[in-house]
Amino acid sequence: MASDSQPDAPAMTEGIVCPTPAPTDDRVQLGHGSGGKMSAALLRDRFLSRFTNDELARLGDAAVVELNDGDVAISTDTFVVSPLEFPGGDIGSLAIHGTINDVAMMGAEPQYLSVGFILEEGLSFDVLDRVVASMDTAASAAGVTLVTGDTKVVERGKADRMFINTTGVGRLEDTFRPSPEHAKPGDHVIVSGPIGRHGIAVMAVREGLEFEVEIESDSAALTPLVRALRETVGSAVHVMRDPTRGGVASALNEISSAAGVGIELEDHAIPVPEPVAAACEMLGLDPLYVANEGIMVAIVAEEDGDRALTTLKSHPLGENAVRIGNVVAEHPGMVVLRTGVGGTRVVDMLPGDQLPRIC
Amino acid sequence: MASDSQPDAPAMTEGIVCPTPAPTDDRVQLGHGSGGKMSAALLRDRFLSRFTNDELARLGDAAVVELNDGDVAISTDTFVVSPLEFPGGDIGSLAIHGTINDVAMMGAEPQYLSVGFILEEGLSFDVLDRVVASMDTAASAAGVTLVTGDTKVVERGKADRMFINTTGVGRLEDTFRPSPEHAKPGDHVIVSGPIGRHGIAVMAVREGLEFEVEIESDSAALTPLVRALRETVGSAVHVMRDPTRGGVASALNEISSAAGVGIELEDHAIPVPEPVAAACEMLGLDPLYVANEGIMVAIVAEEDGDRALTTLKSHPLGENAVRIGNVVAEHPGMVVLRTGVGGTRVVDMLPGDQLPRIC
Repeated sequence: MASDSQPDAPAMTEGIVCPTPAPTDDRVQLGHGSGGKMSAALLRDRFLSRFTNDELARLGDAAVVELNDGDVAISTDTFVVSPLEFPGGDIGSLAIHGTINDVAMMGAEPQYLSVGFILEEGLSFDVLDRVVASMDTAASAAGVTLVTGDTKVVERGKADRMFINTTGVGRLEDTFRPSPEHAKPGDHVIVSGPIGRHGIAVMAVREGLEFEVEIESDSAALTPLVRALRETVGSAVHVMRDPTRGGVASALNEISSAAGVGIELEDHAIPVPEPVAAACEMLGLDPLYVANEGIMVAIVAEEDGDRALTTLKSHPLGENAVRIGNVVAEHPGMVVLRTGVGGTRVVDMLPGDQLPRIC
Repeated sequence: MASDSQPDAPAMTEGIVCPTPAPTDDRVQLGHGSGGKMSAALLRDRFLSRFTNDELARLGDAAVVELNDGDVAISTDTFVVSPLEFPGGDIGSLAIHGTINDVAMMGAEPQYLSVGFILEEGLSFDVLDRVVASMDTAASAAGVTLVTGDTKVVERGKADRMFINTTGVGRLEDTFRPSPEHAKPGDHVIVSGPIGRHGIAVMAVREGLEFEVEIESDSAALTPLVRALRETVGSAVHVMRDPTRGGVASALNEISSAAGVGIELEDHAIPVPEPVAAACEMLGLDPLYVANEGIMVAIVAEEDGDRALTTLKSHPLGENAVRIGNVVAEHPGMVVLRTGVGGTRVVDMLPGDQLPRIC
């Protein structure tokens, strides 16, 4: 499947990571949108070499800027998911949840969203209406207000039905500033729910796969979990991250690099729902790399780790939260998985796309 | 030309406005992205009927929201211009100027921008690099910082090389709040420079037209003009608007509707550069409807109108500023052009696209 749509991004095989394409390549490839190594290279070579400012260089899910003598988190995300509708959501709810979550992961309270539509000529109003209704429901449920927008229309064949950009802002408190570089040896690594559902739900529709149990996207606003953590354990939360493109593996790799620490995961502890595991087996995917849109990774100081876990589990969104590993001083910049038989394997960044256009 | 690309949006003939397509149409058409009547209908029927909040309902170029006990303007814009590069700019500089100007038109000082790219697989890095360099130059020159971004890649044929969304924020002062509904009878209507250059520059490249004198886009950040007006005439500036999609005619129609006033323009006063006039003649276009990206319309209290004009003219960006008419109490909601021979014609909103994809 991967080989049909992305000839230059070799499929991932457990433990084997193919090199990124030779630097002589002079064109954008699908893998550049993956959230993996090729994305990082694009960002470094094409954008950061040009736009030089401290805030952008931090590469957070959102930027922190000062406005009216206080700090504000700003995040932008463009959604190109195909198909537009999938079990558990659609491009509209995804566009709301995705940006809210990026703002929330900075520790901020998401308040306002902008929305920019690109519509392909010929898109049916039925679809547009359903997507807009879904955006409204998602925004209202999360308590954020959509305050400004823009719509562009392009000719038939110049876009794929509908793309949506959302940009979100929210205020930050001085006392709650989780950030990837704050991870410390001893910290607990917690995920707030089972992994891999969003990516597999989208793939299943796109590829016309049928499973015994329908897999629904986990798409959800993480704000209630963030609020709960802020109120109970506060600054003991060193890092929060929503593992979207590139999955839990990529998010943890970014954190271990940013903080200069190692991360050790326990294979048996990683919560992979049975249908997701079966689908991944069939599709040759590793659930650690599959996108999620409604779970978070929290890295919490050792002494408050259990309390953070209890806090997450007390909320419906986090009832299946579980500790999956620890931050360690060894092998800085590297994520290692301890397997059942006493072995370990390195969980590296993917070079390119595992699943294109899942968000 | 219009009939090739937009079968449902009839070409404009002076004074004759064709009806919008029948409401039984159930699909998005190119004209829905025009900034004209069809855009307004899409907004009303598909978006505002669902997203109901006061700020969105104001339909300003940007929203005003409270953040950290102060007001902030937020604006978002997606750029789908074709071709990506044109005389006087490219999609990158346009994406910076367009959003900065929308924030500035609220009276705010633009501070931060986010950027979201959609790249088509196969886009050459040469083009991407030029566009990114151009964004950086434009942002630096305007004193705004690009603080966060996102990149998505879609398969070949699923986008048109590159689309860019930018979202901007900037702080507002309590004492300077121009807004369309503030226009009052007697106010002077001023444009800060010659009209029609951007739309014609883009069309000329797209259609392979050659004129004796190359027409360059006016694309520019209007912040210096806004600052100058704020400092000299302040709250006497009742309305500011950058007449982009739909041109000066659409901007003035929106203002006259919002304020419930009439607007009278003097045909002979409207500054149309000779090459733009010639191109419009050839293409069957009315320059009043052609997009601009570096001029503003300012509606200023009668007693300060001359001072505002002098202020604009003292800056290189506004050296050709000119008063083109007045706000009147008569014919509320209607813009009327006085022609040389003593006649008048109504300058209505266009039903659909005059020039698709010029921003």
